[in-house]
Amino acid sequence: MIKAGIIGGTGYTGVELLRILALHPEVKITAVTSRSDAGMRVDALYPNLRGYLSDLIFCLPSVESLSNCDVVFFATPNGTAMLMAKELLDLGIKVIDLSADFRLKDVVEWEHWYNLTHATPYLIEQAVYGLPEIHREKLKNANLIACAGCYPTAVQLGFLPLLEKDGVDLNLIADVKSGVSGAGRKAEIATLMSETGESFKAYSASGHRHLPEITQGLTAIANQTVNLTFVPHLTPMIRGIHATLYANLTSAMGAEELQMLYEARYANEEFVDVLPFGSHPDTRNVRGSNRCQIALHLPQGGKTLVILSVIDNLVKGAAGQAVQSMNLCFGFPENIGLVTVALYP
Amino acid sequence: MIKAGIIGGTGYTGVELLRILALHPEVKITAVTSRSDAGMRVDALYPNLRGYLSDLIFCLPSVESLSNCDVVFFATPNGTAMLMAKELLDLGIKVIDLSADFRLKDVVEWEHWYNLTHATPYLIEQAVYGLPEIHREKLKNANLIACAGCYPTAVQLGFLPLLEKDGVDLNLIADVKSGVSGAGRKAEIATLMSETGESFKAYSASGHRHLPEITQGLTAIANQTVNLTFVPHLTPMIRGIHATLYANLTSAMGAEELQMLYEARYANEEFVDVLPFGSHPDTRNVRGSNRCQIALHLPQGGKTLVILSVIDNLVKGAAGQAVQSMNLCFGFPENIGLVTVALYP
Amino acid sequence: MIKAGIIGGTGYTGVELLRILALHPEVKITAVTSRSDAGMRVDALYPNLRGYLSDLIFCLPSVESLSNCDVVFFATPNGTAMLMAKELLDLGIKVIDLSADFRLKDVVEWEHWYNLTHATPYLIEQAVYGLPEIHREKLKNANLIACAGCYPTAVQLGFLPLLEKDGVDLNLIADVKSGVSGAGRKAEIATLMSETGESFKAYSASGHRHLPEITQGLTAIANQTVNLTFVPHLTPMIRGIHATLYANLTSAMGAEELQMLYEARYANEEFVDVLPFGSHPDTRNVRGSNRCQIALHLPQGGKTLVILSVIDNLVKGAAGQAVQSMNLCFGFPENIGLVTVALYP
Amino acid sequence: MIKAGIIGGTGYTGVELLRILALHPEVKITAVTSRSDAGMRVDALYPNLRGYLSDLIFCLPSVESLSNCDVVFFATPNGTAMLMAKELLDLGIKVIDLSADFRLKDVVEWEHWYNLTHATPYLIEQAVYGLPEIHREKLKNANLIACAGCYPTAVQLGFLPLLEKDGVDLNLIADVKSGVSGAGRKAEIATLMSETGESFKAYSASGHRHLPEITQGLTAIANQTVNLTFVPHLTPMIRGIHATLYANLTSAMGAEELQMLYEARYANEEFVDVLPFGSHPDTRNVRGSNRCQIALHLPQGGKTLVILSVIDNLVKGAAGQAVQSMNLCFGFPENIGLVTVALYP
Repeated sequence: MIKAGIIGGTGYTGVELLRILALHPEVKITAVTSRSDAGMRVDALYPNLRGYLSDLIFCLPSVESLSNCDVVFFATPNGTAMLMAKELLDLGIKVIDLSADFRLKDVVEWEHWYNLTHATPYLIEQAVYGLPEIHREKLKNANLIACAGCYPTAVQLGFLPLLEKDGVDLNLIADVKSGVSGAGRKAEIATLMSETGESFKAYSASGHRHLPEITQGLTAIANQTVNLTFVPHLTPMIRGIHATLYANLTSAMGAEELQMLYEARYANEEFVDVLPFGSHPDTRNVRGSNRCQIALHLPQGGKTLVILSVIDNLVKGAAGQAVQSMNLCFGFPENIGLVTVALYP
Repeated sequence: MIKAGIIGGTGYTGVELLRILALHPEVKITAVTSRSDAGMRVDALYPNLRGYLSDLIFCLPSVESLSNCDVVFFATPNGTAMLMAKELLDLGIKVIDLSADFRLKDVVEWEHWYNLTHATPYLIEQAVYGLPEIHREKLKNANLIACAGCYPTAVQLGFLPLLEKDGVDLNLIADVKSGVSGAGRKAEIATLMSETGESFKAYSASGHRHLPEITQGLTAIANQTVNLTFVPHLTPMIRGIHATLYANLTSAMGAEELQMLYEARYANEEFVDVLPFGSHPDTRNVRGSNRCQIALHLPQGGKTLVILSVIDNLVKGAAGQAVQSMNLCFGFPENIGLVTVALYP
Repeated sequence: MIKAGIIGGTGYTGVELLRILALHPEVKITAVTSRSDAGMRVDALYPNLRGYLSDLIFCLPSVESLSNCDVVFFATPNGTAMLMAKELLDLGIKVIDLSADFRLKDVVEWEHWYNLTHATPYLIEQAVYGLPEIHREKLKNANLIACAGCYPTAVQLGFLPLLEKDGVDLNLIADVKSGVSGAGRKAEIATLMSETGESFKAYSASGHRHLPEITQGLTAIANQTVNLTFVPHLTPMIRGIHATLYANLTSAMGAEELQMLYEARYANEEFVDVLPFGSHPDTRNVRGSNRCQIALHLPQGGKTLVILSVIDNLVKGAAGQAVQSMNLCFGFPENIGLVTVALYP
Repeated sequence: MIKAGIIGGTGYTGVELLRILALHPEVKITAVTSRSDAGMRVDALYPNLRGYLSDLIFCLPSVESLSNCDVVFFATPNGTAMLMAKELLDLGIKVIDLSADFRLKDVVEWEHWYNLTHATPYLIEQAVYGLPEIHREKLKNANLIACAGCYPTAVQLGFLPLLEKDGVDLNLIADVKSGVSGAGRKAEIATLMSETGESFKAYSASGHRHLPEITQGLTAIANQTVNLTFVPHLTPMIRGIHATLYANLTSAMGAEELQMLYEARYANEEFVDVLPFGSHPDTRNVRGSNRCQIALHLPQGGKTLVILSVIDNLVKGAAGQAVQSMNLCFGFPENIGLVTVALYP
C-alpha cells in the first residue's frame, strides 16, 4: 500500500484520479490539494465520492503536506508542476505530471507553445513520457513521468504500428474530435452548455499545443521527420476522443496485411483493442475505461488508409494512463485498479 | 461461484446486468439468450464488453440452455417471465425478474394496467418484491424475486421514512423525471435522438403503469391507503431518475427532526445516502452506481415537505438492485460487485 | 419605423432581442451597448447575425448613445435598469426592462430577494408588468415596462384561468424545469456543459427569486393570498421551460368544464395555445417561438388538476414577450415580428 | 401564389418544408401526403405548426390529390420519386425531389449504390441538380429538380472555388460530421437517444452513398477526375453538418490569395458566407437558416489547405435548398421565404 498525493484535485483529471484511486487496492490517498477549496471536504465538492473518501479534506498545496507521500500526481494547469517537482523528487517522491510541463524535449518549443519560461528545464531529460505502450520499460524505472496528453494518446496509438514500419507517406492528417471535458473545469463562457450543446466546431485549426507533442512522438516512432496536419474539434458531449487519421500508403499493403500489423503490435496490450477490419468504434465503447479501440479502413480499396482511434480523454487520455504508469513504476500489475467495463448506454 | 443465466440480454437492463456481473467475483455467466441475435457474440453487439466476456454467444431462450444455472435473470419485456418462471423454479433455479410480471399482488389490477392475461397468477404470492431496504429479510429466502421498477424505487425510498411515521397527509405528489434509457432499447420513433434531444415533456400524466406498483408499496408502508398523483417526464439525457416528492405535514415536524428521521432510517443502508438538509442531488452523483441519494427541503419553513430522490434507473432502478437482491438470496455480502464510484463528469 | 436601443446586448436575452428585431419591419436598431465588448462588431460576437446587422458595433452604455431612441430595452443583470431608467424616461424614451428591477411592487421584498438597495423605488408604481395576456390595456399606455420573468410567465399563464374562477385550494405547487440558457451567458463552472450535460437536478428548492414575483401575480389574479411551493430544476437542454402545476379542486369541475374554461380564456390570445385535454406538450413545440402551450390532466379522475405549460424561456419568457409588449405600447399589431414556426426537430 | 404539394410529409425534410412554406408569401400548400398518417391533422403530428396550417390533413399519395398543384416536392425515401415523377411532369407540374433518385447521371452507379433498379432512367438527363450556387441558370428553367444531398452540399460548396482554379492535388479528403436528423425519422435502434447521445463515431467509412454524388460534382467543377476520401461521422446533436476538408496545394497560393478567391466566388451569393481567414464556424451559426458558412486555414503556413464548411442539413442541406430552387424556377426572388436568423443559443 503506497501513499499518494494529488495536487490540483478539483479539476476533471483530479476528480478522475480520485475516482480511480479510491478503489485501487495498493493506494491510499493521503493528501489532495486545492488553493480555492482548502478546508472543504472532498466529497462535498464531489458527491459521487461520498462513502469512499469520507475523511479527505482539501489542503493547501505545499511540500510539507505531501512529504510523506510515495507518489504525487499533478492534475494542475500547465506551469505548476515545473515549480514543485524538484523538491518532491529530492525527497524521493515519484512525480507523475498530468499537465504538459515535461512532455516536450525541446524547451524552446515548449516555451513557444505554452507561452511560459520553463522553471526547471534540467528536469526535462529525466522525464519519461507516460505512454506505456511505447515507453513501458523506461516507465518501470521512472521517477518523473510526463503523462501523454489526450489528443497525443489517441493519435500516437493510432499511427504507431504503421509508422514502425516503412511504406507510408509521412505527410499525415489527424482530424480529431473531443468532448468538452477536455477543456477542463474552468469558469469560461466558451464551454457553457448553452455555447457547446447542439453545435459542432473546429478550433485551433491553425495550430494547437498538442501538435508539437504529437509530432515529437510520431517522429521518434518513424525515426524520420513526420509532417502532421492536426485539426481538433469540439463535439457536444462530455467525455471521449475520436481520432480519424489519414495516411497515404506508398507500398502495396492490403487490408489483411494492415490488420495483421495492428493486431500483432497490440496483441499483448490489455488497453489497446484492435477491432475487426472495417469496424466503427463509438467513443462510448470506452467511456470510463482505460482502453483505446482502433479500427482500420481502406476506402475504395485505395491507397489512403483511414484509422479510427477512440479513447476516454479523462481515463486513457489522462487519469487512467497516469495510474497505469504508476502501476509500472511501483511494480504493480499494470492493470490493477483499471479493470472496468465501459458504461453503456 | 454460482452460474447465472440472463434471458433477454440485448436490452439496456440486460447489458447492464452483463456489465455488473462480468466483474462479480461470485458469478459466472453461463448463458445469455436473445431471439433476435442468437449465434452472435455478445461482445460484437456490445463492444464495451470486449475482453471481459469473450466466449459468450447469444443463444435462443429455452429451459434447456438455462437448466444448469443457479439463478436466471429476466431482462425481458413484460409478459415473458410469467411464461418461463415456473419451469425454472421447479428445477430449483432462483428466478430474478426485472420486468413487472410479479410486482403487483392484485392480479386484476396487473391485467388492467399491462393489458395481458397473467399466465401464472399462482406464483405471485411467493414472489418477493426486490427492494432490499424494505424487504431484506424476505429476500434472503426468496426463490422468485420481482425487482422493483425504476420509478417505484426512487419514489418509495424517498417517502419511506416519512410514511413509516405518522404526521403526513396521505395525498401525495410525485413529479418524476427520467432519462430516455428507461424506455428501453426498441426501434421506436418516440425515443429517437431527434425526438427527445433538446426537449422536455411529461408523458402518461393521466396514468402510468408504475402508479399501482408505487401505491401498493406506499400503502403497505403507511398501513393506510395512500393517494398518489404521479406525473412522469422524459428529460434529454440517457441515464438517471430524479423524483421530486411533495407531502403535506400534519404534525409539527421541523427540518432537524425530519433530517434525523431520514438519517436514522438509512443509517445502515449502504445504498441509500441522505445528503445534508437543503442539498440538491444531481442525477450524475449516482450515474453507474447502485446508490440512491436523498435530500430534504421545507420551503418557506412551511408545511410542505419536498423530498428529492435520485437514482440511476439502470442500476438501483434495475440491474444493480437485481444483483443486490441476488447477493442477499445467495448469502453473499450485500454490496459485492456493486462497489463503484459514479462517473463524474 | 421606430429606433430601438439595447443595453446589455451580449447576454442571451440580448442576442435574442437582436435576432427578433433584426427582422421586425417597424424597428431599426440604432444602438447596442456592452461594457466588455465595446468597439466590436455585433456580428463578430454573434455570427448568426452576419448579413443582417452588419453595420452594428457595440458601444459603451450611456444616455447619450441612446438619446435618439424611441425605446430602450434593458437586457442587463438585475440592478442596472434601476440606475438608468429615470434619465431615459425623462427624455421621453420608453423603457422595457427584461431584468427584475421593476417587477415587484413591494420594494422591501425586492431588496430582500435581490440583495440590493433599490435606487429608484418611486418608479416601481408606474411600471407595468409585461405579461400582455393579463395587462394588455395598461401596456398600451406604458412608458416603463417590467417584463415578466421566464418562470413567472409559464406558471402564471398556466394557473390564470383557474384562479380567475373560484373552486380551487390556494395551496398550489409548481414543479418547473428549465433549460440552462435561463442561467444566462456568464463565465461560471455551474453551467458548463460538463456540469449540466447528462444530468438533472433541482436548485433553490428552499426559495428562488421568482417565487415572490409569481406569488404577487397569482394573488392578484385570485384576489386572495396564494401559497405557492415552487421548485425549479435544471434540465440538460439549452432552451425551454416546462411547468408542471398541481392544484386541488374544491368544487366539482370535470375535465370538460376545465377544458372549456381554459379554451374560452385564451380564445383570442394568439400566443397562448390550449391543446386538447390530456395532451403532453414538448418544449420543442415552442422552441424559438413566442407561444405558450398548455394542456390539462385530471389523473385518476380525481381532484388534483395537473396543468402542463411550456414556453421558450428566451422568447415568451424574455425577448419575445418584450417585443410583444413593445408592439402594444407603440400601437403596432401585437404579433408583428413574432410570427414564426418553432424549429422542429 | 402557387399551389404546392408535399409527398412524404411526415419525415424531417417534409416537416422542414412545411415550416418554411407555411410562411412563404408566394406558396399555398394544398396537399401533404402520408401513407401511415392519412386522415390525421398535420398539426396533430407536428404541434409546432398549430395555428399556421390548421386546415391541412394528411392524404394518401396519389396523382389525383396532387393534380392541381403547380409544384410537388418529394420528401420521400429513395425510390419513390422515380415512380411518380413522370405522371406529374406530364401534367405540367414541376417536380422537386429531395431524395437521391435523380442525382446521379450514371444510372449504373446509382443502381449499385442504392441497390434498386431505376424505374425512369430516361428522366435523369433532364433533371437539374439543385445546388443553385453552381446550377442557377439551369434551375430557372427546370421542370425536374434533383436537390443536392446534405453532405454533397457542404462538401461541394467548400471545394468549389478551389477546384474552379488550378493548383491543387485532386486527391482530396472530406472528414464530415453530421447531426442525427440526417438519418431521418425512422423507427431504428441505431439513432435512439440512448445510442447516439454522449457518443461520437464514424460510419460508412469504407463507402457512403453520397460519395459518388460528391465525386460527380467535384469532377464536373474541376473538369478532371477527382479522387475523394470521404468519411462521414455521427455527432450527438440534432441538426448541423460540419465538413472539414483537406486539399494539398500544388501551386504557391498564400492565405490572402485563397481568401480572396473564396470571397470573390461567393460575393453575390446570399446563402454562402465566407468568414474571415482563420475563423471557426460553429454549426449553430446556421441552425434553422439556409446559409453555408465557410472558413479557410493554412496550418503551419504549409501546403495543406483546410476548409471548414457548415450548413444546417435540413435547410441548406434539404428543404431550404429545395425552396431556393423552387424560387428560381418560378421566377420569385431567390431568397423569398428564406430570410431568417439562425437560432442562437
